[in-house]
Amino acid sequence: MKTMAEAFHHTLKDIYYAENALTKAIPKMIDAAPEGDIRTAFEDHLKETKEHVKLLKQVFKTIDKPAEGEKCDAIEGLIKEAEGIIDEASGKALGACLIAAAQAIEHYEIARYGTLRQWAKEQKNDEAHDLLSKILDMEKAANAKLTGIAVGNA
Amino acid sequence: MKTMAEAFHHTLKDIYYAENALTKAIPKMIDAAPEGDIRTAFEDHLKETKEHVKLLKQVFKTIDKPAEGEKCDAIEGLIKEAEGIIDEASGKALGACLIAAAQAIEHYEIARYGTLRQWAKEQKNDEAHDLLSKILDMEKAANAKLTGIAVGNA
Repeated sequence: MKTMAEAFHHTLKDIYYAENALTKAIPKMIDAAPEGDIRTAFEDHLKETKEHVKLLKQVFKTIDKPAEGEKCDAIEGLIKEAEGIIDEASGKALGACLIAAAQAIEHYEIARYGTLRQWAKEQKNDEAHDLLSKILDMEKAANAKLTGIAVGNA
Repeated sequence: MKTMAEAFHHTLKDIYYAENALTKAIPKMIDAAPEGDIRTAFEDHLKETKEHVKLLKQVFKTIDKPAEGEKCDAIEGLIKEAEGIIDEASGKALGACLIAAAQAIEHYEIARYGTLRQWAKEQKNDEAHDLLSKILDMEKAANAKLTGIAVGNA
């Protein structure tokens, strides 16, 4: 990986892997979440994650590459952490720690999409820039919603 | 882990492990980074990370617990990702991908400190709240600095 085009392609495969992994991990978080705001937020996020996978496929098209993932150690660690919460937490700690784990995942995605969007701009790939901006805005909104639930649950 | 006090203690051990792990990982990123802004930013971040470890020790004191870490899968994955960049990237991609990896780490820390600060406030632990706010502000500033370098390097 030497050029910015290669860096963009590599990081796109990384987040594509991450979003696909989340479509499998979030249902476990939904099942574990207390009913109410938290579970609803996770259900919404699962729908959005599936939409992000579709939008990412369009980004791959802008660089004439097949949509494919490449193992992302970061998301594996973040998901493992969320699964640990499901196993270890109960009572009031469960909901709070699940939100915290979800926010750590959101922040990872915010970092990745912020980077990819900037790289798309530098490579004058306007279509990818707009698609990635759309996903980034959704991730930021999802994170803000989780903060609202966390603070409201105090 | 049932109560919010237990959740706070668990998550504090998690970020203490993460900060300590970073004091070992950042030097490798410094060695790999191209000379100039990026390397300087990583050197500054190493100094700040060591300060965060000290500040976290004070947070442990506010809850009368010994400062100790607990393995954090998320930071392990994020560090593994950064190490992968060092192995696989070169040329212009190396600096850009190292910044991206560092920003993913910053975002993880921002998520964790945002959560811990809120929990400290809920538990009326003002001293911990102020210490965690101080670290959170430093992490946000470090992330903004990295964004500036990334955008300036375009």
